[in-house]
Amino acid sequence: MKTIKEIGEFGFIRLLEERNRVFFNRVIKGIGDDCAILEKDQESVFLISTELFIEDVHFLKKKSPPYELGLKVVNASLSDIAATGGRPLYLFTSIAVPQETGLDYLESLYKGIKEACKKYKVDIVGGDTSSSPDRIAISIAVLGEAKKDKLVYRKGAHPGDLIYVTGYLGDSAAGLMLIKEKLSAPEDIAKKLVNAHHIPCPRLEIGNMVAEHGLANAMIDISDGLIADLNHICEASNTGAIIYLKNLPISQELTCLKERLSFPLHELALYGGEDYELIIVVPSNKAPRFKRLCSEKGFSVYLIGRMVKEKGIRLALDNRHIPLTIKGYTHF
Amino acid sequence: MKTIKEIGEFGFIRLLEERNRVFFNRVIKGIGDDCAILEKDQESVFLISTELFIEDVHFLKKKSPPYELGLKVVNASLSDIAATGGRPLYLFTSIAVPQETGLDYLESLYKGIKEACKKYKVDIVGGDTSSSPDRIAISIAVLGEAKKDKLVYRKGAHPGDLIYVTGYLGDSAAGLMLIKEKLSAPEDIAKKLVNAHHIPCPRLEIGNMVAEHGLANAMIDISDGLIADLNHICEASNTGAIIYLKNLPISQELTCLKERLSFPLHELALYGGEDYELIIVVPSNKAPRFKRLCSEKGFSVYLIGRMVKEKGIRLALDNRHIPLTIKGYTHF
Repeated sequence: MKTIKEIGEFGFIRLLEERNRVFFNRVIKGIGDDCAILEKDQESVFLISTELFIEDVHFLKKKSPPYELGLKVVNASLSDIAATGGRPLYLFTSIAVPQETGLDYLESLYKGIKEACKKYKVDIVGGDTSSSPDRIAISIAVLGEAKKDKLVYRKGAHPGDLIYVTGYLGDSAAGLMLIKEKLSAPEDIAKKLVNAHHIPCPRLEIGNMVAEHGLANAMIDISDGLIADLNHICEASNTGAIIYLKNLPISQELTCLKERLSFPLHELALYGGEDYELIIVVPSNKAPRFKRLCSEKGFSVYLIGRMVKEKGIRLALDNRHIPLTIKGYTHF
Repeated sequence: MKTIKEIGEFGFIRLLEERNRVFFNRVIKGIGDDCAILEKDQESVFLISTELFIEDVHFLKKKSPPYELGLKVVNASLSDIAATGGRPLYLFTSIAVPQETGLDYLESLYKGIKEACKKYKVDIVGGDTSSSPDRIAISIAVLGEAKKDKLVYRKGAHPGDLIYVTGYLGDSAAGLMLIKEKLSAPEDIAKKLVNAHHIPCPRLEIGNMVAEHGLANAMIDISDGLIADLNHICEASNTGAIIYLKNLPISQELTCLKERLSFPLHELALYGGEDYELIIVVPSNKAPRFKRLCSEKGFSVYLIGRMVKEKGIRLALDNRHIPLTIKGYTHF
């Protein structure tokens, strides 16, 4: 009999998706997008996303301060709401901790959770607490809402559409390498990159604007890596994509570390996870309005490629198109 | 600095409850009842409950077959919806498993989850999958709905109200003792008690009926034990309670094991957790109608006590009232 490692995380999710297609109740979108989408009333829907964070898989207790961890679990969860263009409202936080966990640790963790919720006007309304034999497990569920006719999905991208991202790519992955001591950097640079890993920013405002003005054909947030998440859009939309290598937004801090890496810098931007920036797929005729509105509101956006008919994702480099391996962070 | 063990699970929940009272959005009930209650539309509310199940805390992988575990995590979660009188609609299941976990194990687990959902017409609409270093963690979130003016809370009980439970008490705790080999029993008896532990029954139908007909002043499900959960009602309602020892519903199977226990049988009924029966507090003038409707629909209910003004919970035994220690299963 196979193990879960052999079929892989996405194989397992596909299996679940296929087996859970019969609905007793009204469901607008079940398994297979950033959020489940459920009818609220005639005009609005509820968006729900749940995520698990396991010690030694998603975070290292000794290396991630609890306050920052609290910020991160909320911000990463809110990012799923941002990716559909919705507004987060409520948060549930369940946590299992070993009995000897210090109350100061938990107080800092919950302070971070609360601070992040306050920033985005989200109410903490429930959860569960339990003991755990040796590792911390945190489960976050976020409930948000959106106008039914304004939702943006993974599907919907067309050949010719332009691909934008909302911020630097690869900083979070570099931060994780620094935390794990697989890379070293001057103190000020290290601090910025580790911060990018610990305190991602859910792009709620721009996600909201894009939905409100109907500017995008598809949207997703980058949790597994640019290529892995863009591939979700390609698969759902039945398209391919071309990425312009020279356009990838890479921070000054990350660029400084170029010589210290044992692989090309752009690999961090293409395959590094947890940047939590949005990939926004904009039809070309709406691009001028999209760019104007972004500039008016002070949102940074970077044009990094375009959707094409031919399947797969390719990298445009000196007039050549190099096929990219579809990979990213997967759990199995 | 204190550890979480020193302040205890309920101390920690109280801390969270106190610190999370500011609401940005409309919230009917946040932390502190079986479910969070959020406004859906003018007439209805959404009920949401989240629970974590950790290997070696909530279940033993070697002793709990995965199919039964799947049934249990769903049924236990649905029980929270039953306790407010609502109807479950949607379920989210997030799971973290070690990489070497067999696909057959996971298939059986999900089969159990799906089977339980199908039985109660609940749709599985989302979740999350991830790896875990060495233990399985399962997070279940259930979303249900109820009429706003029909909800039943923990608060609302009055002195003089009658206390009913919906089924046998202590069977699940005895089942767990058998699983852990802290007790032995003839095969047929063992099977029934272990089943009571593995496959609890969420009392959705009676919970629904009670809410629909406005028959109860308060309601809760028994997860931590009769006394611990009844105490939640007492504290929320600012009352005490008297329990009639001779009325406690104890199954024939459990009674057979009386001589094999190193403590009085009724302690299992009072303090054993995870029976997932409902405690229904019925005002005495509605009791005849409550009993008639239960009998018409074939619901078993047992009158086990009454609410009183004097705080605390006491056991009525041979004309004496013995104060009971408030305890139950707590995680810390």
